[in-house]
Amino acid sequence: MSYSYTRRYTGPLQGVVLDWAGTTVDFGCIAPAGAFMEAFRRHEVEITLEQARGPMGMPKWDHIKAVLAMPPVSTAWIARYGRRPDDTDVDSVYETFMPLQVEIVDRYADVIPGVADAIAAMRRRGLKIGSTTGYPRQVLDVVRRVAAAQGYEPDIAVAAGDTPAGRPGPAMALRCVIELGISPVEACVKIGDTVLDVEEGLNAGMWTIALSDTGNEVGVPLAEWRVTPEERRAALRDPAQERLRRAGAHYVAGSLPDVLPLLDEIEARLARGERP
Amino acid sequence: MSYSYTRRYTGPLQGVVLDWAGTTVDFGCIAPAGAFMEAFRRHEVEITLEQARGPMGMPKWDHIKAVLAMPPVSTAWIARYGRRPDDTDVDSVYETFMPLQVEIVDRYADVIPGVADAIAAMRRRGLKIGSTTGYPRQVLDVVRRVAAAQGYEPDIAVAAGDTPAGRPGPAMALRCVIELGISPVEACVKIGDTVLDVEEGLNAGMWTIALSDTGNEVGVPLAEWRVTPEERRAALRDPAQERLRRAGAHYVAGSLPDVLPLLDEIEARLARGERP
Amino acid sequence: MSYSYTRRYTGPLQGVVLDWAGTTVDFGCIAPAGAFMEAFRRHEVEITLEQARGPMGMPKWDHIKAVLAMPPVSTAWIARYGRRPDDTDVDSVYETFMPLQVEIVDRYADVIPGVADAIAAMRRRGLKIGSTTGYPRQVLDVVRRVAAAQGYEPDIAVAAGDTPAGRPGPAMALRCVIELGISPVEACVKIGDTVLDVEEGLNAGMWTIALSDTGNEVGVPLAEWRVTPEERRAALRDPAQERLRRAGAHYVAGSLPDVLPLLDEIEARLARGERP
Amino acid sequence: MSYSYTRRYTGPLQGVVLDWAGTTVDFGCIAPAGAFMEAFRRHEVEITLEQARGPMGMPKWDHIKAVLAMPPVSTAWIARYGRRPDDTDVDSVYETFMPLQVEIVDRYADVIPGVADAIAAMRRRGLKIGSTTGYPRQVLDVVRRVAAAQGYEPDIAVAAGDTPAGRPGPAMALRCVIELGISPVEACVKIGDTVLDVEEGLNAGMWTIALSDTGNEVGVPLAEWRVTPEERRAALRDPAQERLRRAGAHYVAGSLPDVLPLLDEIEARLARGERP
Amino acid sequence: MSYSYTRRYTGPLQGVVLDWAGTTVDFGCIAPAGAFMEAFRRHEVEITLEQARGPMGMPKWDHIKAVLAMPPVSTAWIARYGRRPDDTDVDSVYETFMPLQVEIVDRYADVIPGVADAIAAMRRRGLKIGSTTGYPRQVLDVVRRVAAAQGYEPDIAVAAGDTPAGRPGPAMALRCVIELGISPVEACVKIGDTVLDVEEGLNAGMWTIALSDTGNEVGVPLAEWRVTPEERRAALRDPAQERLRRAGAHYVAGSLPDVLPLLDEIEARLARGERP
Amino acid sequence: MSYSYTRRYTGPLQGVVLDWAGTTVDFGCIAPAGAFMEAFRRHEVEITLEQARGPMGMPKWDHIKAVLAMPPVSTAWIARYGRRPDDTDVDSVYETFMPLQVEIVDRYADVIPGVADAIAAMRRRGLKIGSTTGYPRQVLDVVRRVAAAQGYEPDIAVAAGDTPAGRPGPAMALRCVIELGISPVEACVKIGDTVLDVEEGLNAGMWTIALSDTGNEVGVPLAEWRVTPEERRAALRDPAQERLRRAGAHYVAGSLPDVLPLLDEIEARLARGERP
Repeated sequence: MSYSYTRRYTGPLQGVVLDWAGTTVDFGCIAPAGAFMEAFRRHEVEITLEQARGPMGMPKWDHIKAVLAMPPVSTAWIARYGRRPDDTDVDSVYETFMPLQVEIVDRYADVIPGVADAIAAMRRRGLKIGSTTGYPRQVLDVVRRVAAAQGYEPDIAVAAGDTPAGRPGPAMALRCVIELGISPVEACVKIGDTVLDVEEGLNAGMWTIALSDTGNEVGVPLAEWRVTPEERRAALRDPAQERLRRAGAHYVAGSLPDVLPLLDEIEARLARGERP
Repeated sequence: MSYSYTRRYTGPLQGVVLDWAGTTVDFGCIAPAGAFMEAFRRHEVEITLEQARGPMGMPKWDHIKAVLAMPPVSTAWIARYGRRPDDTDVDSVYETFMPLQVEIVDRYADVIPGVADAIAAMRRRGLKIGSTTGYPRQVLDVVRRVAAAQGYEPDIAVAAGDTPAGRPGPAMALRCVIELGISPVEACVKIGDTVLDVEEGLNAGMWTIALSDTGNEVGVPLAEWRVTPEERRAALRDPAQERLRRAGAHYVAGSLPDVLPLLDEIEARLARGERP
Repeated sequence: MSYSYTRRYTGPLQGVVLDWAGTTVDFGCIAPAGAFMEAFRRHEVEITLEQARGPMGMPKWDHIKAVLAMPPVSTAWIARYGRRPDDTDVDSVYETFMPLQVEIVDRYADVIPGVADAIAAMRRRGLKIGSTTGYPRQVLDVVRRVAAAQGYEPDIAVAAGDTPAGRPGPAMALRCVIELGISPVEACVKIGDTVLDVEEGLNAGMWTIALSDTGNEVGVPLAEWRVTPEERRAALRDPAQERLRRAGAHYVAGSLPDVLPLLDEIEARLARGERP
Repeated sequence: MSYSYTRRYTGPLQGVVLDWAGTTVDFGCIAPAGAFMEAFRRHEVEITLEQARGPMGMPKWDHIKAVLAMPPVSTAWIARYGRRPDDTDVDSVYETFMPLQVEIVDRYADVIPGVADAIAAMRRRGLKIGSTTGYPRQVLDVVRRVAAAQGYEPDIAVAAGDTPAGRPGPAMALRCVIELGISPVEACVKIGDTVLDVEEGLNAGMWTIALSDTGNEVGVPLAEWRVTPEERRAALRDPAQERLRRAGAHYVAGSLPDVLPLLDEIEARLARGERP
Repeated sequence: MSYSYTRRYTGPLQGVVLDWAGTTVDFGCIAPAGAFMEAFRRHEVEITLEQARGPMGMPKWDHIKAVLAMPPVSTAWIARYGRRPDDTDVDSVYETFMPLQVEIVDRYADVIPGVADAIAAMRRRGLKIGSTTGYPRQVLDVVRRVAAAQGYEPDIAVAAGDTPAGRPGPAMALRCVIELGISPVEACVKIGDTVLDVEEGLNAGMWTIALSDTGNEVGVPLAEWRVTPEERRAALRDPAQERLRRAGAHYVAGSLPDVLPLLDEIEARLARGERP
Repeated sequence: MSYSYTRRYTGPLQGVVLDWAGTTVDFGCIAPAGAFMEAFRRHEVEITLEQARGPMGMPKWDHIKAVLAMPPVSTAWIARYGRRPDDTDVDSVYETFMPLQVEIVDRYADVIPGVADAIAAMRRRGLKIGSTTGYPRQVLDVVRRVAAAQGYEPDIAVAAGDTPAGRPGPAMALRCVIELGISPVEACVKIGDTVLDVEEGLNAGMWTIALSDTGNEVGVPLAEWRVTPEERRAALRDPAQERLRRAGAHYVAGSLPDVLPLLDEIEARLARGERP
């Protein structure tokens, strides 16, 4: 027979995969940058907040390697150590960084306002709650404990190192799909605050929603954000949203509670036979 | 800014995920049906070859449950045992079936002609070779050993039971993506001989190619196929291909070597920004 | 299951439906206009060639009614008869027109150069040859006889009046589909020289190819066309093609032999899953 | 001019083409299967209800041929007659079947509950009512008489044999288009209960809606359906709907009254320039 | 990276570009035809209203050339002057026409009923108001003065001759985009009453809305339109709308006030990522 | 009639609009950055090369304003002048910058290797050559003189200030369309080396091609590029191309000569009815 058939999923959403810092906890995504800056300081090389944030979302070892590859940082490293930094230097900074991160992360693990209610609303519509992070397992464990005490407990949490490769690859998000029994993948939405979160979701074949206000791209702590006038907020938010949109995010929202109406819109698109 | 951006992968294919029986080994997909029939016979209930094949591609425990749910089989079971079969009966047949399967599967694990060369050609174009199966681990181990001796060794083999859920869900195929480091998922092609193989691939977000001549839908052993006249082959192949096409397979081919030109076509479609 | 399936025909073309005057016979589509002008002249109302051609492609009774509705013609009619023309006047002109048409049509039924070879080429690629016309059966019979003597015999010929409604409706073209056993309809191409031909094909769900040089929209007899310089031909052809394109014709060609490569292109589009 | 123009129909629906048994009359599509079984029984070869239903929707002569080609039936035939069944055997069963069918069909021609009101609602929105069937003319005449007495009278009824070829070809449905004066074809919806109904509609270029609960794919008589618990209904309905969806049906509904809101949805899609 | 990104504008409409005669002023588009007829009359060659209107929308010099190229007009010209008309004849008619037009145009510059309110509503939704015309600057100046006195003043008015080429090219409309600071072009809607208006908008990359009742294609003055019965209006409007639709207009409306809901529809389409 | 018609341009490309520095002259786009740095230095505030390049492609006054708004620069400004920089400071830097730019730009106006031949090839295929720039008229005049002496003379050159608004708006590119008589706009390709070039083209409704190797995103002078090893080139080119692609460029190439085959590809897409 000379016919071809195209199948499309037209059912409901089944799950979300949420990033941690900047998405569900740690408003402003402050912890990682602080720990990176401190770890470099202990190696007698100063990095700026902007440099520390640049590759946010990567596994932390790769993140340190990326910072060391930035021309001003490698120049400073050469000035201090007389040679170009190599993988053993990455190891060395990473070894300083890891306990530092565990040390300080509980100060930056507060659940972002509105998140617990948003998650409850997602559960009521039948969604399973997956999560992935650039944190290694031991840091994630601290964060989960704090978050659980404040009412946020996802069904599964995948850490950097749990899969052979991390972001921007899809492995951690797909691990959630497998463990949560979601089928097909396009019944799932990845939600995060960085370009790497968006790429993880797109590479997995999921819908993607990026968050600007609470995350790394804006990078302002909650206390400061609360007193930031709207005009200044817009000046920070607009370029952040533009970067996230250019990465290919299907939608960009302010914070997790703003995501709920977008889930309705995605379901309407699925029902019409659209795909992420 | 009021712009949205849509990202499309335009790069090369990175991997394939291959089914085992009926796709790379066991021309005609004979082993499972034989073992099922024998296991039922030992429970004094006869099932037909067609009934044994019906749910092919599922995890084997689920397969047995599905056969027991067929009206003529459950009727025969009631006639013999005086009650409707339940999960303990599934367990019982499964326990008979499993060692039987291990016992006989090495007789049905010969690599299908042309497969080793096709795999070599895929490797030459840079593809990673994943595999999934409805067999449990202990049966798969036997099959892998025989296949390896005949020159077919995939980079990874995921068995039923390695993931929380099996086909038609995407878990086993996604496990291959994770382990092989493929990104994005649409750089991958699922190839198999059953409707469930097609669904596994579609649910994972992969391109799917279904094989008719060597697999379960035609169900003829190699020796018999070789002497089958072309007209009779067409009479078996046409409805098989129609069933696979209606499941939504992107392409349907005869056997694995016929797949190679289709990979070129898929890459051309990716380059034009198309998606599976 | 929450899936939808879309079927597309990806097989070969199976048939064509050809118009008669201006497409396969009567280069320039001269016969009908001449007969109309003569019929009106016998009613002592002069119409121009342009008025006579206007509604070309309609059943002839409707054609006469449309001409009578043109303001200058109805004005002239009122001037001559003292009242607005009604259906009995249409009947009257039609009664004059019909025998006139039969009388003169054999002078205008020569097969257009290249048509017989083009039809033979279509048959070699397995196409069935249907035909429809605005002529009533008795006129068509004359034309068919002349055409057959010159080597053009379609597999079926449907005349105005053979179906409850004529062009722009799809009835005559669908009658060809039924009688020729074509399935699905999108395996068929309607070819004609008027806007009404294009509409008949589109309304039937067929691919449509419109011909400019040999037909009513250019309206130049063969002997004259042969000596028309290319620049003048272009001046006649360009607006004719634009009118046919604006009607929605998938392709516009000069004459029937130019259609053959377009059939290849349509088959390539069918193979890609496109529809008319 | 270097422009192309694409025409799309954006107007209202104009007509429906309805199947008979299982769609508008004979809840469960019982008559044909019963007559087939009886006709074989009179030839001393038993067939199962499932075998009798398999090719439902085809012209009845072809249906009998298809049943005789099923391996268990041809085996039984050979056992009884010592030779493979041929076309004269098809003729013979058909001759038995035909009067049987006329004999019994009036018992199975009751209009399905809700159909008369649904048809009235369709007429109020301006739709013309066409119908096609796999029954030959003499059986259809009986059914029409019974249905008319119960308030269902379509504007036209085309029987198997009225066109050179039957389903899955589009001929009978296109005959309705011609006789009802519908234009274009995509202003028409084919509604039926079998895969062959869906194919007839798709091949004609129509929208297609398939019905599960009242038809051949579920195959349960009205009295029994009324007392079937919802869970069991779902177990019968889900695979039936999946088969109809895989055939490419645009929509699948339970019974004819459920179709009305789908007509609104189809009109909205036409208005947006979509096609079937 | 092997990704491509497609950008789509999803923001609000920013401006409209309005034609003058037949769209915002001069109901029925009477002025130009009258002046053309008078200019030819002064050259002792009579042209019909229909001939005068034919190329409406072009720059006036080109318009006169197009009329002179019509066979009956050139024939009449030859009859009167003994030779085929050339560009100096176009100049001569144009020189007669220009002062005539300035002379009479103020009699035909009344703002069409409802236009001032519609413009106010457009301004309230933030739209900038551009305008283009086939009139030369000196005629436009008269029209603007009259219109302003009646409450219609666009933000910019581009006349024939202000750009190197006029309609059907996009130059005048793009000039509005430049001067009004609109970005991107697809945030703009061209609104006019002729095929050339539609083409100007399409060639600029704008959405296009064509108006039938107030413009050149219907060509009836306001006083007469008011007393035209609806049936006759429909007989004039239907073919006018069909011509405008075949030119590719995205929408066709009666008069400018009818455009407002269409702007909402266009914004909804932009928000979904559609383009003109 | 209930039909809509969609028009698509299927003709050839008619023109290109080329950026100047980094695209056709000044390999590496060196001039502007040097002049900016020098102008700030003369105001006793140091800026980095990276800061100087950031907003490249904007009109120069806006560019200076954007640099002054960068936090480290405004901080340094406050440190030097005791107050936040305002528009009079922008004026002041601009006044220093302008003569500086004119002074030095002739040293950076050499035509990029291969450009003259590429332009000649474009002209041979019938393309008109437009150009736009962020330079003001007096700087552009210098550059044009040098370029002309080396064999590159576009048909038109639009400078910053020639239109009410500059990039990322479409005004300068549309000015080229108007002056070159191109119709429709989608017959034109914008080619440049910055994100703002891409946005100018997209906002105009043109196809866009971005150049990486010769332009501002890589930012390496010709002499240095010639001795840069391929691996280092790739390290500079890959993120540059990714930024240009994320802006929505239809294609990204190395330098102007690489564009020629892409023009064929764009024409093939136009012929299939695609749009930019």
